[in-house]
Amino acid sequence: MKENLVKPRTLPGFMELSPFDQLVFNKIKNTLEETYRLYGFMPLDTPVLELSEILLAKAGGETEKQIYRFSKGDTDISMRFDLTVPLAKYVAKNYGELTFPFRRYQIGKVYRGERSQRGRFREFYQSDIDIIGDGELGLMNDAEIPSVIYNIFRKLGLDDFTIRINNRKLLNGFFAMLGLSDKAADVMRTIDKVEKIGKEKVVEELVEIGASNDAAEKIIEFISVKGTNEEMISKLKEFSDGNEAFDEGVKEIEYVSSASKALGVPEENFKIDLSIARGLDYYTGTVYETTFNRHPEIGSICSGGRYDNLAGFYTDKKLPGVGISIGLTRLFFILSDKEYLNTEGSSACDVLVIPMCEDMTYALTVTDRLRESGIKTQIYLENKKFKAKMNYANKLGVPFVIFIGEDEINSKTVTLKNFNTGEQTTDSIKLISSLIKSALPENLKPIKLD
Amino acid sequence: MKENLVKPRTLPGFMELSPFDQLVFNKIKNTLEETYRLYGFMPLDTPVLELSEILLAKAGGETEKQIYRFSKGDTDISMRFDLTVPLAKYVAKNYGELTFPFRRYQIGKVYRGERSQRGRFREFYQSDIDIIGDGELGLMNDAEIPSVIYNIFRKLGLDDFTIRINNRKLLNGFFAMLGLSDKAADVMRTIDKVEKIGKEKVVEELVEIGASNDAAEKIIEFISVKGTNEEMISKLKEFSDGNEAFDEGVKEIEYVSSASKALGVPEENFKIDLSIARGLDYYTGTVYETTFNRHPEIGSICSGGRYDNLAGFYTDKKLPGVGISIGLTRLFFILSDKEYLNTEGSSACDVLVIPMCEDMTYALTVTDRLRESGIKTQIYLENKKFKAKMNYANKLGVPFVIFIGEDEINSKTVTLKNFNTGEQTTDSIKLISSLIKSALPENLKPIKLD
Repeated sequence: MKENLVKPRTLPGFMELSPFDQLVFNKIKNTLEETYRLYGFMPLDTPVLELSEILLAKAGGETEKQIYRFSKGDTDISMRFDLTVPLAKYVAKNYGELTFPFRRYQIGKVYRGERSQRGRFREFYQSDIDIIGDGELGLMNDAEIPSVIYNIFRKLGLDDFTIRINNRKLLNGFFAMLGLSDKAADVMRTIDKVEKIGKEKVVEELVEIGASNDAAEKIIEFISVKGTNEEMISKLKEFSDGNEAFDEGVKEIEYVSSASKALGVPEENFKIDLSIARGLDYYTGTVYETTFNRHPEIGSICSGGRYDNLAGFYTDKKLPGVGISIGLTRLFFILSDKEYLNTEGSSACDVLVIPMCEDMTYALTVTDRLRESGIKTQIYLENKKFKAKMNYANKLGVPFVIFIGEDEINSKTVTLKNFNTGEQTTDSIKLISSLIKSALPENLKPIKLD
Repeated sequence: MKENLVKPRTLPGFMELSPFDQLVFNKIKNTLEETYRLYGFMPLDTPVLELSEILLAKAGGETEKQIYRFSKGDTDISMRFDLTVPLAKYVAKNYGELTFPFRRYQIGKVYRGERSQRGRFREFYQSDIDIIGDGELGLMNDAEIPSVIYNIFRKLGLDDFTIRINNRKLLNGFFAMLGLSDKAADVMRTIDKVEKIGKEKVVEELVEIGASNDAAEKIIEFISVKGTNEEMISKLKEFSDGNEAFDEGVKEIEYVSSASKALGVPEENFKIDLSIARGLDYYTGTVYETTFNRHPEIGSICSGGRYDNLAGFYTDKKLPGVGISIGLTRLFFILSDKEYLNTEGSSACDVLVIPMCEDMTYALTVTDRLRESGIKTQIYLENKKFKAKMNYANKLGVPFVIFIGEDEINSKTVTLKNFNTGEQTTDSIKLISSLIKSALPENLKPIKLD
């Protein structure tokens, strides 16, 4: 054994998938991308590294501690910790070149040096969409978001999810009605924890913040209202005492709900939920969360909302927007953990060509023809025994193998073996190609990407 | 104007494309990925950050100076500067789980803090494929590489390129025949520069290294041999004086050439070129370069070769392999610079739906139906004048717009306008969908990804 070997290892908190899992991951990533494109979102791919001055213009507290920050020469550099700050920089920088409303998606790795624990990653993919307006942005855009989420999860083969929406104006208006306007941000953060800590604890904390017992109880009553979306809206109207923000919130949530319905989002996947607040300060209207019905403990897997101003740190242009973010690495981890992953069709290739004699010329031609017709084809090129060849096919998970021996070379045919049924067919390359193609599930409904 | 604004800017040397250019970039990236998958290469996505100890096991000199390296807590971390070292780590680490020959592709960003200059990037995509054997790897695998390169460039719409191959055994054997075995590495590096510095300068440098004038002239004569691949092989056989390495080199290059041909690579895109040496020490057999015929000044855009041992720093398993690397960011820059980019079909979406009256319900339903049928559809949701709406459609570069006014709502139809021809048609959603789909070039030949 050689000395001085460096033990090969990967940093803790960094996901590194096996090739087969990576295939499944990529399929999910492609589904996101394909769906975003269907809605006219354009791709952006900003650098992983930015000037610290840019990236930390807004950050502070916990976030700042987690950032990977270093110097190279005289330059103070940080690794991006989300995709929102780079978007803000991009839009402010290229304001004159962009067409508003600007719809962009970005799927990319972000970095947070968090304490390492199960299901928490230091390098992870975020998958974001945002619609940015110049000065103003129609409320109707808020209804596009649930439609995107719905289509993504449906395409991933999941139906057991609920997109929950609320509106910050509703909440702020209600708090104002209780005389708690100046404590709105704290109240918001507290009620956001209701699923984690329970109603009693929330009442306690609200009283600590300075709400009266009566007000705290009313808040709990309010965020606990349940019903169909239609019922929710009538109940909300009953709460109104003429507060302007509240009434605008009611109008907005009614409008967004009915527009989402017109965009094909079924009621069973879309619920008004007054307990959704989103901790972040910068949301100002609609807010979204998405949860798996059978796994509330996971929390939201896709969240976002409407904000008044994207890039106030970089420009004095007012840039309102609405967007959502999916933590793709975390989502993959959860789907895998709950055995929700669709691993169908994730083999190294569709067919393995196995040459049975020394002259490979014909086998190479066959391989080329199969690839030309869009069949993922690998040719076994090693000089090994038959058993080793079949073992290889097995480990790759291929649905088909093709044998090419003297007979096939002489008759210009190929012999196809279906690995699932054991069935064997000898025919022309052309017919065998069609046979393979018709049997591949992914060929029945091709995914179209730009 | 607000004070304390941070000027939005991007680090120099970091490519940040406009959304329209990014669409074109992604199309190229998808073409690479799709082609790799056709050959049975499996995806890998290793972290951008690795332990410095791992990443720098082999590095030294220039490379090490360029690396982005920093500490986080007690951990000495570096950003990857290529995709080969992470592959070596991955294969050594997961040796027991992998099936050999192991075909992997990886397309990812790598980092080098080079001096910033036009066409040089500090963050850039590399796109690598490798086939790794366990202990041994059939020579035939070397013939798959030119076939991959050929298919990629053809699919990108380029035909004016040449894949040049050579073999290190040929060169080493020839140098041995001249008594220069102990100087082989230096001779290799010198002749690699012939296209840059010219033959005379190469002779000078060879003599400096310690070659006789006669030997230097013979080397120049050797690397200048030209002809068809068949002619090249006969001429090579004439050079033979029984040196074992040389004769093996001849056999290998003959075998790889004829197998590449059987895999469908035409002779006009595939040339034996004895001047290709590749600077890197670790290549041991076939080496590849790819150049644009009309732009020799660019140098190689896709290079690689056969090596004896991938991961000698991490494991005592012998892992021979063959692979190539495309500098995707640089390739994009070059294609854009030479106006070789295929920008066809890079619009924000296929159709913009423009509602002409206040009630948008029907327009939203139409939008949903179009998306359901796979048409990239955006709906204009802002309350603006007609001219502003058409202006928006224009800027997005959409080929079609759909108008929905009172008439369309009442008759359950839509009015389609072809932006190129000006033609206008009113019909059912279903018929208009088919009309749009049949007119979109990308729908004629869908790209299939996993």
